[in-house]
Amino acid sequence: MKLAALFSGGKDSTYAAHLMEEGGHEVSIFATMRPARMDSYMFHGVNIHLTSLIAEALNMPLVTARNSGEKEKEVDELKRVIELLNVEGVVTGAIASTYQRDRINRICGELGLRHFSPLWGRSPQEVLDAEIESGMEIVMVHVAANGLDKSWLGRRINKTAMVELARLGEKYGINVCGEGGEYESLVVDAPWFKERLILDEAELIWEGTSGTYVVKNAHLAPKHIKVKNNPP
Amino acid sequence: MKLAALFSGGKDSTYAAHLMEEGGHEVSIFATMRPARMDSYMFHGVNIHLTSLIAEALNMPLVTARNSGEKEKEVDELKRVIELLNVEGVVTGAIASTYQRDRINRICGELGLRHFSPLWGRSPQEVLDAEIESGMEIVMVHVAANGLDKSWLGRRINKTAMVELARLGEKYGINVCGEGGEYESLVVDAPWFKERLILDEAELIWEGTSGTYVVKNAHLAPKHIKVKNNPP
Repeated sequence: MKLAALFSGGKDSTYAAHLMEEGGHEVSIFATMRPARMDSYMFHGVNIHLTSLIAEALNMPLVTARNSGEKEKEVDELKRVIELLNVEGVVTGAIASTYQRDRINRICGELGLRHFSPLWGRSPQEVLDAEIESGMEIVMVHVAANGLDKSWLGRRINKTAMVELARLGEKYGINVCGEGGEYESLVVDAPWFKERLILDEAELIWEGTSGTYVVKNAHLAPKHIKVKNNPP
Repeated sequence: MKLAALFSGGKDSTYAAHLMEEGGHEVSIFATMRPARMDSYMFHGVNIHLTSLIAEALNMPLVTARNSGEKEKEVDELKRVIELLNVEGVVTGAIASTYQRDRINRICGELGLRHFSPLWGRSPQEVLDAEIESGMEIVMVHVAANGLDKSWLGRRINKTAMVELARLGEKYGINVCGEGGEYESLVVDAPWFKERLILDEAELIWEGTSGTYVVKNAHLAPKHIKVKNNPP
């Protein structure tokens, strides 16, 4: 089945698309919404300009569209973009967010498409574990939760980080997958990437209780060339 | 009729898409190929990364895909991208290039789509005149022809420039619209743009007989704010 994957550049959408391909489906195109507001209910906007580089690293066509990011209106805007695609279904990385899932289900129903969310219903801990096991190189690019301080920005989410996240999860009640907006991530490489993303320049922005690792410059590089990839 | 416009960010593809909308068609999406080789027979690659900003300035969804830029192979790659779109036709800015037109015609025929090239068959002089009259703000970003020296890079293509181009055309036999690769352009604003492109930083690269104005940084701005827009 030919599918479009909703793609933010983060770990969940990247991994969900990969799982569908592993399952024998053809993910034909990625779709990225660029929300005009950072408080969108549907789409994350941190480093969203990098999705075109990541799609290139996967040799995947990408459709991008501006999105108001305004509640409900953003859903109709997404529908108009999905409608432009000649696919049979949509993949999303939703794990437990019924808000997002119900709306994508509605769009897909109206357009006669199937909605796949291969991470749905799994425990956040299990999902994060599988994501790290998959070999994705995941960078934390936004934090907005008790216990996640500045030191997390730009940090690799590996097994060590996962243990700490789990501990913070118990202490502060945060979702270890960040699905409640606790954090956002960026995948810079994975075994199925044809090239890897090198982050050349980044800026750390901290605003009281939340912060963002804004990638200012990045490029693609062959995978066998090892470079330090952790600015600033 | 719902159309996809092949879009390079240059004056001909921008103007062709606009003419179709003026004619009552709905251009629903732009499509940009990113050729891996700069000597592609089909696609131009100068500043091609800016098409996503320009599409945003027009509030137009954009599909991008990497393209080998290798003769003929690049045509099949384009077909696979067009095939992903739920449209009834394709718009191109071809004026006289039968090479490009024949191949797009073939793709469209195979996919059951119509091919529109509203500039086709018009004289280059007439096309350039109409493009300038349309109010597009056009910047010359690449030159590769006798008579077009470094001073043309980054220059606005307005009526004065057009007169000079016509004179150079007579003297050196270059096509005033640049369709033979004599030059390439970038549209930074037009009356139908919702925002305008501001070029923040550019690098002038000159290599013997050809040169490129590589835009390093650009952003969108509201149209009523006047800023100097001519780096370096």
